Amino acid sequence: MACGMSPTDLDALLLAALKEDAPFGDLTTGLLGFADLRAAAVFLAKERLVVCGLPAAVRVFELADARCEASALLPEGQAANAGDILGRIEGPLEAVLLAERTALNLLQRLSGIATLTRDAVEEIRGTAARLLDTRKTTPGLRLLEKYAVRTGGATNHRTGLSDGILIKDNHIAGAGSIAEAVRRARSAAGALWRVEVEAKSLEEFRDAVGAGAEVILLDNMDPETMAQAVRERPPGVLLEASGGLKPGGLRRVAETGVDYLSVGALTHSARAVDISLEIEPA
Amino acid sequence: MACGMSPTDLDALLLAALKEDAPFGDLTTGLLGFADLRAAAVFLAKERLVVCGLPAAVRVFELADARCEASALLPEGQAANAGDILGRIEGPLEAVLLAERTALNLLQRLSGIATLTRDAVEEIRGTAARLLDTRKTTPGLRLLEKYAVRTGGATNHRTGLSDGILIKDNHIAGAGSIAEAVRRARSAAGALWRVEVEAKSLEEFRDAVGAGAEVILLDNMDPETMAQAVRERPPGVLLEASGGLKPGGLRRVAETGVDYLSVGALTHSARAVDISLEIEPA
Amino acid sequence: MACGMSPTDLDALLLAALKEDAPFGDLTTGLLGFADLRAAAVFLAKERLVVCGLPAAVRVFELADARCEASALLPEGQAANAGDILGRIEGPLEAVLLAERTALNLLQRLSGIATLTRDAVEEIRGTAARLLDTRKTTPGLRLLEKYAVRTGGATNHRTGLSDGILIKDNHIAGAGSIAEAVRRARSAAGALWRVEVEAKSLEEFRDAVGAGAEVILLDNMDPETMAQAVRERPPGVLLEASGGLKPGGLRRVAETGVDYLSVGALTHSARAVDISLEIEPA
Amino acid sequence: MACGMSPTDLDALLLAALKEDAPFGDLTTGLLGFADLRAAAVFLAKERLVVCGLPAAVRVFELADARCEASALLPEGQAANAGDILGRIEGPLEAVLLAERTALNLLQRLSGIATLTRDAVEEIRGTAARLLDTRKTTPGLRLLEKYAVRTGGATNHRTGLSDGILIKDNHIAGAGSIAEAVRRARSAAGALWRVEVEAKSLEEFRDAVGAGAEVILLDNMDPETMAQAVRERPPGVLLEASGGLKPGGLRRVAETGVDYLSVGALTHSARAVDISLEIEPA
Amino acid sequence: MACGMSPTDLDALLLAALKEDAPFGDLTTGLLGFADLRAAAVFLAKERLVVCGLPAAVRVFELADARCEASALLPEGQAANAGDILGRIEGPLEAVLLAERTALNLLQRLSGIATLTRDAVEEIRGTAARLLDTRKTTPGLRLLEKYAVRTGGATNHRTGLSDGILIKDNHIAGAGSIAEAVRRARSAAGALWRVEVEAKSLEEFRDAVGAGAEVILLDNMDPETMAQAVRERPPGVLLEASGGLKPGGLRRVAETGVDYLSVGALTHSARAVDISLEIEPA
Amino acid sequence: MACGMSPTDLDALLLAALKEDAPFGDLTTGLLGFADLRAAAVFLAKERLVVCGLPAAVRVFELADARCEASALLPEGQAANAGDILGRIEGPLEAVLLAERTALNLLQRLSGIATLTRDAVEEIRGTAARLLDTRKTTPGLRLLEKYAVRTGGATNHRTGLSDGILIKDNHIAGAGSIAEAVRRARSAAGALWRVEVEAKSLEEFRDAVGAGAEVILLDNMDPETMAQAVRERPPGVLLEASGGLKPGGLRRVAETGVDYLSVGALTHSARAVDISLEIEPA
Repeated sequence: MACGMSPTDLDALLLAALKEDAPFGDLTTGLLGFADLRAAAVFLAKERLVVCGLPAAVRVFELADARCEASALLPEGQAANAGDILGRIEGPLEAVLLAERTALNLLQRLSGIATLTRDAVEEIRGTAARLLDTRKTTPGLRLLEKYAVRTGGATNHRTGLSDGILIKDNHIAGAGSIAEAVRRARSAAGALWRVEVEAKSLEEFRDAVGAGAEVILLDNMDPETMAQAVRERPPGVLLEASGGLKPGGLRRVAETGVDYLSVGALTHSARAVDISLEIEPA
Repeated sequence: MACGMSPTDLDALLLAALKEDAPFGDLTTGLLGFADLRAAAVFLAKERLVVCGLPAAVRVFELADARCEASALLPEGQAANAGDILGRIEGPLEAVLLAERTALNLLQRLSGIATLTRDAVEEIRGTAARLLDTRKTTPGLRLLEKYAVRTGGATNHRTGLSDGILIKDNHIAGAGSIAEAVRRARSAAGALWRVEVEAKSLEEFRDAVGAGAEVILLDNMDPETMAQAVRERPPGVLLEASGGLKPGGLRRVAETGVDYLSVGALTHSARAVDISLEIEPA
Repeated sequence: MACGMSPTDLDALLLAALKEDAPFGDLTTGLLGFADLRAAAVFLAKERLVVCGLPAAVRVFELADARCEASALLPEGQAANAGDILGRIEGPLEAVLLAERTALNLLQRLSGIATLTRDAVEEIRGTAARLLDTRKTTPGLRLLEKYAVRTGGATNHRTGLSDGILIKDNHIAGAGSIAEAVRRARSAAGALWRVEVEAKSLEEFRDAVGAGAEVILLDNMDPETMAQAVRERPPGVLLEASGGLKPGGLRRVAETGVDYLSVGALTHSARAVDISLEIEPA
Repeated sequence: MACGMSPTDLDALLLAALKEDAPFGDLTTGLLGFADLRAAAVFLAKERLVVCGLPAAVRVFELADARCEASALLPEGQAANAGDILGRIEGPLEAVLLAERTALNLLQRLSGIATLTRDAVEEIRGTAARLLDTRKTTPGLRLLEKYAVRTGGATNHRTGLSDGILIKDNHIAGAGSIAEAVRRARSAAGALWRVEVEAKSLEEFRDAVGAGAEVILLDNMDPETMAQAVRERPPGVLLEASGGLKPGGLRRVAETGVDYLSVGALTHSARAVDISLEIEPA
Repeated sequence: MACGMSPTDLDALLLAALKEDAPFGDLTTGLLGFADLRAAAVFLAKERLVVCGLPAAVRVFELADARCEASALLPEGQAANAGDILGRIEGPLEAVLLAERTALNLLQRLSGIATLTRDAVEEIRGTAARLLDTRKTTPGLRLLEKYAVRTGGATNHRTGLSDGILIKDNHIAGAGSIAEAVRRARSAAGALWRVEVEAKSLEEFRDAVGAGAEVILLDNMDPETMAQAVRERPPGVLLEASGGLKPGGLRRVAETGVDYLSVGALTHSARAVDISLEIEPA
Repeated sequence: MACGMSPTDLDALLLAALKEDAPFGDLTTGLLGFADLRAAAVFLAKERLVVCGLPAAVRVFELADARCEASALLPEGQAANAGDILGRIEGPLEAVLLAERTALNLLQRLSGIATLTRDAVEEIRGTAARLLDTRKTTPGLRLLEKYAVRTGGATNHRTGLSDGILIKDNHIAGAGSIAEAVRRARSAAGALWRVEVEAKSLEEFRDAVGAGAEVILLDNMDPETMAQAVRERPPGVLLEASGGLKPGGLRRVAETGVDYLSVGALTHSARAVDISLEIEPA
């Protein structure tokens, strides 16, 4: 699962999630004395969705008990419909019950993001614009949620504060002006990064262009203003629309000719899609 | 913040979230050279919401830089409206920018859950039923999300697999029958726990009653069936309605006379409420 | 080993114990240059005991060196006598020597608790009472020691403060009265927990009954008083005898008709039973 | 508390113990709603004991809640009697109840070891022998238990495998002979360590002397044999008696003239001494 | 210390270093019984150097014992000479001795890198080239060593593999050609990164230019070839000289007109500068 | 790799180093889409060196991706020349590129120390003196660097403060005199350690002898003074020369007849030797 986490780190996250659900064992199952009773189970889609996180979800079972055998049946990013079987697990009944909720919580959330993203990508298909995510992710799940965005077909903005340069309004206020902020960033930055700067109006946009910004974030502008910025921009300068964009309202923005739309709702307000684990004690 | 996490564990979670956003510093701010420039900031509600997670959100700033002073201005669980100021931060501009997104991501999510929960509690007000959450939480945030549910006014179901007994369909299949499952659990369990068992039909409900279950989960029943179970239940037996319950459709269920409604959507599909951090470099 | 710890957590505990004994290698063995010399070894009981912790003890060797092969020869809970062989290890001599003391320290302690518990269970055999442990365990070993108690044949009281309700004298003092404490707990608790309350006299016992407590802890009462409480209790109310109970003095208490005896000495004052590792360099 | 753990590591151990007892908060106290109710409490000795671990025990309260103020009233190693007050705590009732059991579990165990050790030291007073501990400690508590031994008045043997050279029977078997084992160790070891070797008979003792061992462990010898070894030893060679030594049977061994007695029971079979926390809600 | 590590992470690194030196206390000092004896100490430069890591070095003492007071007397990046006092510590003698070596090991290493870097920056002063570091750092000290490079006056190349795009020979081989590699990277990358590609010859350089690379690494070229690349490069394309560059041989390369020189020796082969801690027991 | 670290701890160190280089994946490789493309690679010596750390270096690849197969081709401590192949790796191209730099950084550093040590050992060959390292190691790499010293043929001094007794000038000042310091250490120390004490002059040396020190560190003495100390020392007392010793200047010191030379430069100022990873995409 090319999520940017090492296998070790992903395992650690899954183990922590298992432990969060069962810090000192499964009380119910422990009382029932299933001994070596085994079970088979499948992940079943209960609605239309884009699969994401399935390798992690099956891994949860293996981590719960090394005697589980679990496998994904669909590739990441695959569209599925209600009734489709996504993956299969076989193992001790105790272990399957131990891992069930943790696996589902992760799978439903990541597939929820991928599904919402896929729909948003479809909404702007045919325009030149690309869809970006934001840093508005769930604490602890940044890399997984950004992976779900990629799986849904969009492009990641920077991962976080350490790996990209984005000068926002408060940076500008701190530096005194757009020009000064861009100048400082450009002179101190290594060669590998472009400088993006936020503009809230056409005036600020023009300042940013004048200051040599290579990417300009058009913040909370109406489509007409954005279209004007598109017309005015020099060759090579990239434009990103941002601020309150929501699935369903993306196309009009994409058609202004901007290069990117960044949409926080992809991660901060996706709902879990409905997937169940159907277990059959053997 | 009475969230069941020790201060040490909560700090660790917040520090991990900060590190997730800035694993090796804030590239942009580092380039701009703000030195000792200070800033003041406020959390501003952009819509109606129930405040939750504010002590954690202000703590993020203190953890980012010990020179930050941050305080909550509203108590947890307080209803707020667009335009209300929720908290105040003062500190080095660099630190405020470093902590901003992490604090907001947490605050918006927890307040989102509390807000959704509050509305659901209002929906069933006047009935005898109480609202419960489920284990359908975000991996890593179980205790915080259950705290948000309490903050919104509902009651927590068990925290996880370790602290309560709930016999579900697959347990029953593993044990052979409802009667056998309840018998095993009752004979092996310590004195401190009641035994809850899931019933998918009136027949199963009656089996559960006969087996001596103290709490019975009515799974995916229609309101009429639930009402029948309410009529039939012996004194002292508690009933919980569960399965696909969603805010907006709760009242009709609550009016059947069940004791509890458990609603997974409170945690797995709450959207982030809109809160911004308004910063003013000093 | 159904100790309520995940395999990962148990391994972590064992690795920490190994590291505690050899934070930077085995100085002696390192100097002796055994190279690939292999050894066979057995765990040998040196006195009568109940086996507990054997899977963990053999795991220590595998964690010390993946080339070790180790296996338990007796099931957990089995009674053994002096001269019985409990388990077998084969591996590099260096690794066997590295793991020896750590494995024995754990095995001797857990078997010591299981042995003491088994004797206590025997002492009350034929009465209706069940034996419980307490929270008086060794810091860091709570789950393992409670597992040893189960292995010895007793029942676990709550694991800790998070998973059961027990209102003690200081809670009562804080709430004002037994009645008020029970009322608050009952009204705020979820459905899955019974409420236990401590009573130090017949008067307090009667208050607890009147307040609706479902389980009553009879603290430091003499057997006559306990017997009186047994006679007075309403149907369905469970009674636990507690306070200074020690193996050897349990039967008279059990014969009062209480449902449970909780005995801190099972864990806080068990001595290590004598087990040796007999090694034969190959 | 000069226990060889850094303040950070000791805090980590205490926090882990707190978390072990309350992984997700104190269910009972949480239900009772004590709000800001405060309490005062004292540690009360219920029997004769040697105080050990008091700074750690009071630290538990501070770690549970920074609003607790706790202090030791007696120095480490002080003898106390039933009725003596050992330390004092003041803080939120909730926090005092949260920390109580964890603090007591540690304090009772360490004081138990110190008390047993003090008695053993008294038993051999007036002889030239010094009392040593062994590596037979509780997993996770090695440094604290060895500190309790020092607090009781004895001397620590090596901390573990990394910091001292002790050639035992299986090392000798691996090397081929006592002479070869001592030779290898002496030639490879740095200057800072002496070489100790185990001898099970007078013949082995003489081999060890001949091989140049600087310290010789007399394993499971009867006092007469030990006395003979004392008579035969060359100047500068130190002798340690070991093997099944138990408090009560130490003096006869000490009077043979050996330099050290090492006694595993000091740590592996000490019982917890009786100490209670008397709380008074304020 | 703006090293890109959070205060928490830096403390964790320093505590781990302290523990590495004294995993179970300071044996010597423990035996000497200094009790509350205090000491004053200064860091003394024993040769010409550029100060780096001083805030971390003084922090080591505070972490070893909260009763230490320690302060840096010179700012980071300051040049100092033999005999200059860099910082001052006051605290318990035991704590000063415990922290001494750990603090010096870090301070001498980071100052060594800063000193070597400063000299290299001086060597190319007056040319248009800027000095870069590489990823050839000590495992575990990447952020601190890159901070030392900045402190010495050079610019950081990317921090690691996650935050910048650099297509090297093996990437090219994997993709099939420079053109294909650049095309893939450019089309999949977000807007915030430029694409750098390695060229080993003028032909490869021309391919890279043709492919639209924005930064080109000239690998192991002789100065004449580099100068030719400088002449041929289109406006806006940046050039980095790399491969076996060593202090003393940098100026001739810088004078070719390249924009950057990246020098692995700054971090992988800097020697520790000589600094001592002069202690005076009080 | 007999480095005194457990396999688990060594893996943890290597994983941390990988994560330091790629905290959230390899940006470049991720963009290039190599899918399942595999590669073969070899470690190639670019200069004369003594191999050290090769098992750890090949382990890095296995940890990066379990599908890598990597093996050392030369034993630790083997001398190699430019052009020699040290190890071989086969695995996914992505994984090989991910692990390359981390593996090289470690291998080049440890081999650098082993190479420098080997040369120093050769320098004093034929004298009776043995070469020792010091505690002047890189924070986080103490055990690995001391292992590299052993691999180069020298002997380790104590690992750190916890496992050996060395009374230095500030200890003496704290205790009042050499005699008092040695007396205190000797009377409190267990039997397993010798007492070493530092002497800065013949007078101090004589004090140390008189006080019964078993090992004496001759600090910063000229060779003539050392030779005099050698002549005066009683039988059995060991002498260590220390203070500013550097490879190239060791023989004259060794010829004075001292038993040990301790040389900080072995670890604090070794340069990385030149090794490359030659990759061939398959």
